[in-house]
Amino acid sequence: MPEAPFVPVIPAGGSGSRLWPLSRRERPKFLLDLTGTGSSLLEQTIERLLPLADAPPVVVTGAVHRAAVEEQAAGRARVIAEPSPRNSMPAIALAAAVVEREMPDAVIGSFAADHLVADTAAFAEDVRAARAAAEDGHLVTLGIVPTHPATGFGYIERSTAPVASVLERAGALPVSRFVEKPTREVAEEFLASGRFLWNAGMFVVRARVLLDELAVQIPPLPEGVRRIAAARGTAQEQEVLEEVWPSLLSIAIDHALAEPLAARGRVAVVPARFDWDDVGDFAALARQLRSPAAGGGVRTVGAADGTVRAEGVDGAGDGAGGGGDVRVLGTATVDAVGSRATVYGATHRHVALVGLDGITVVDAEDALLVLDEDHAQELTRIVSALSGAGRDDLR
Amino acid sequence: MPEAPFVPVIPAGGSGSRLWPLSRRERPKFLLDLTGTGSSLLEQTIERLLPLADAPPVVVTGAVHRAAVEEQAAGRARVIAEPSPRNSMPAIALAAAVVEREMPDAVIGSFAADHLVADTAAFAEDVRAARAAAEDGHLVTLGIVPTHPATGFGYIERSTAPVASVLERAGALPVSRFVEKPTREVAEEFLASGRFLWNAGMFVVRARVLLDELAVQIPPLPEGVRRIAAARGTAQEQEVLEEVWPSLLSIAIDHALAEPLAARGRVAVVPARFDWDDVGDFAALARQLRSPAAGGGVRTVGAADGTVRAEGVDGAGDGAGGGGDVRVLGTATVDAVGSRATVYGATHRHVALVGLDGITVVDAEDALLVLDEDHAQELTRIVSALSGAGRDDLR
Repeated sequence: MPEAPFVPVIPAGGSGSRLWPLSRRERPKFLLDLTGTGSSLLEQTIERLLPLADAPPVVVTGAVHRAAVEEQAAGRARVIAEPSPRNSMPAIALAAAVVEREMPDAVIGSFAADHLVADTAAFAEDVRAARAAAEDGHLVTLGIVPTHPATGFGYIERSTAPVASVLERAGALPVSRFVEKPTREVAEEFLASGRFLWNAGMFVVRARVLLDELAVQIPPLPEGVRRIAAARGTAQEQEVLEEVWPSLLSIAIDHALAEPLAARGRVAVVPARFDWDDVGDFAALARQLRSPAAGGGVRTVGAADGTVRAEGVDGAGDGAGGGGDVRVLGTATVDAVGSRATVYGATHRHVALVGLDGITVVDAEDALLVLDEDHAQELTRIVSALSGAGRDDLR
Repeated sequence: MPEAPFVPVIPAGGSGSRLWPLSRRERPKFLLDLTGTGSSLLEQTIERLLPLADAPPVVVTGAVHRAAVEEQAAGRARVIAEPSPRNSMPAIALAAAVVEREMPDAVIGSFAADHLVADTAAFAEDVRAARAAAEDGHLVTLGIVPTHPATGFGYIERSTAPVASVLERAGALPVSRFVEKPTREVAEEFLASGRFLWNAGMFVVRARVLLDELAVQIPPLPEGVRRIAAARGTAQEQEVLEEVWPSLLSIAIDHALAEPLAARGRVAVVPARFDWDDVGDFAALARQLRSPAAGGGVRTVGAADGTVRAEGVDGAGDGAGGGGDVRVLGTATVDAVGSRATVYGATHRHVALVGLDGITVVDAEDALLVLDEDHAQELTRIVSALSGAGRDDLR
């Protein structure tokens, strides 16, 4: 059983441009209730981690989102605002420095604010295993067992070296390397080998180990965040933050810490036994909404659930029938004929769907998206183009 | 050359529920500028017929549409309002009676208010040919040479009997029968035989012949409309109209006149040399908008035409390119990636399309339609269902 206190860290960043126009710069993905549960992804993340925490989770977010994050945290988490985005390493390192100052032996666990995990019991078990390995000085990651040769995730390769007894007891495996998003061909090799796991950006490590190991490669970074942490609650807090933060190297935790430590045999992985989804685009979201676990806020067109839908119109069922499968989130009323589709209605307009197959419709006040889920990744091109078209107001 | 005066008749009825939510009960298809020409289908019909007319065209429409029709007619046509809908025969017969009273020898030509004809010169030639045959006492129809085994139109079968010299001079052919919308199998036989034409509901006939022949089968109908016509402009006009109109048999001209006369060898057909489209659904409309003849109000996403569309986003071209083909009508701004689609934007929202193939989007203030053009006919099921769903406000 783990002995050191455990403090969750939740980096809440990223705009989720593959979910535009649901997610916007001002209202990014982690603040949204994407699956009709009644809770945002951030709120679900806090709720999932709270039972495991020995101190309130630390959410690190951009200054512009501080107020919204504090509102959703509702006193259940501490919120640290970054003056400007500097990628994941400075954010997590700052949280580690704040935790280390109060609980020098603490283990932190960093989990993105915008991922979905339904099986919280299995998640808790795996975190417990990771904590045990982390107490032994490892950087421990939770790796997702791949189900297909995904090219949108980085991979973690398990070492073929013998497993040390401390890891074996914890149920963790040594890691030989981290690999960035591969080509399709390489991803297929990875999948076939059985040695690779998806990198979901979940890291469990002693706060002090994180900072000390970071000092090996990038000394100014742990030094800077320790200075900021030391100044917190003093009259110099803001001054130090504004002086130090802009000087910190903008770098991801994978490059700054995980890869160098893996090369030195200091990384372990716990293969996750829980389900996981990064809800990376509308295809992933549609899969979530069509799964039996979809939240109560998701209405199925055709069911006796109060959806406005008239006699004689198909589109009913839960995926089993031939008539279609339409899931509706939000305020729109929907009629459908022979369609498999997902509708996010932010307006009260009546939406009619005819003959669609795998289409997502987002009906927002200022923008309308119609997307074929097989091309969900291409949405980023629309969002990047909005600036060029002088429509930053829509981003 | 025809000698009798010619008066066009334009029945303006039908709601066009296959074009919902563009067309509504209050604003039916014939009042809409569907193709971005700047003129509604009714206005285009009036403009096409005016040069051929020896007296102002007579538009027969429902009382609820009278004001809108008079506004679009703008003094170029006479408008007769039906107190209630009674199908096409009473409407055309009433127009015939009004024309007969003023010009007893006149030939009328009845053309639907909501069809598209681009080649007006060829149309004028064919109407002239039909007039010549009509002066000889025939009911003359303009038949459309079929391009595919359509099941959505009635058919006209040419007789194999020898062509009378009067018809031969006019370029018309004797008709043996009218056939209602066939099954696919039958339509294929019709197409293969080379003897069948589509029935586009275009009839050219002397007003007096129409009424007299109608009297053979349904005496009260010509008697009634002649009474209404006689009362026009008198103090009894409204009284007679309200007394007689509800008593008239509700029947289509095909059944009331064309079929009985064909059986008696009194119908001729002029095979149309003009293009024709009844714009019967969104698939037909999409074909029109993607044709080179599409009106100037249609914007092509990707062309240098002022459409808001940013660098790096595909969706350009005129159908030739692989990137897509998106036509936009209305006020919406559109960005598209790899899509073949049609957008009718009645709002100022920004519309984004990703990976669509053959999709029509109608973005109205109160309703949103997303339709696969291969299933365009199924839209009627949505519209019929709106009443059942208590949404008559949307019809």
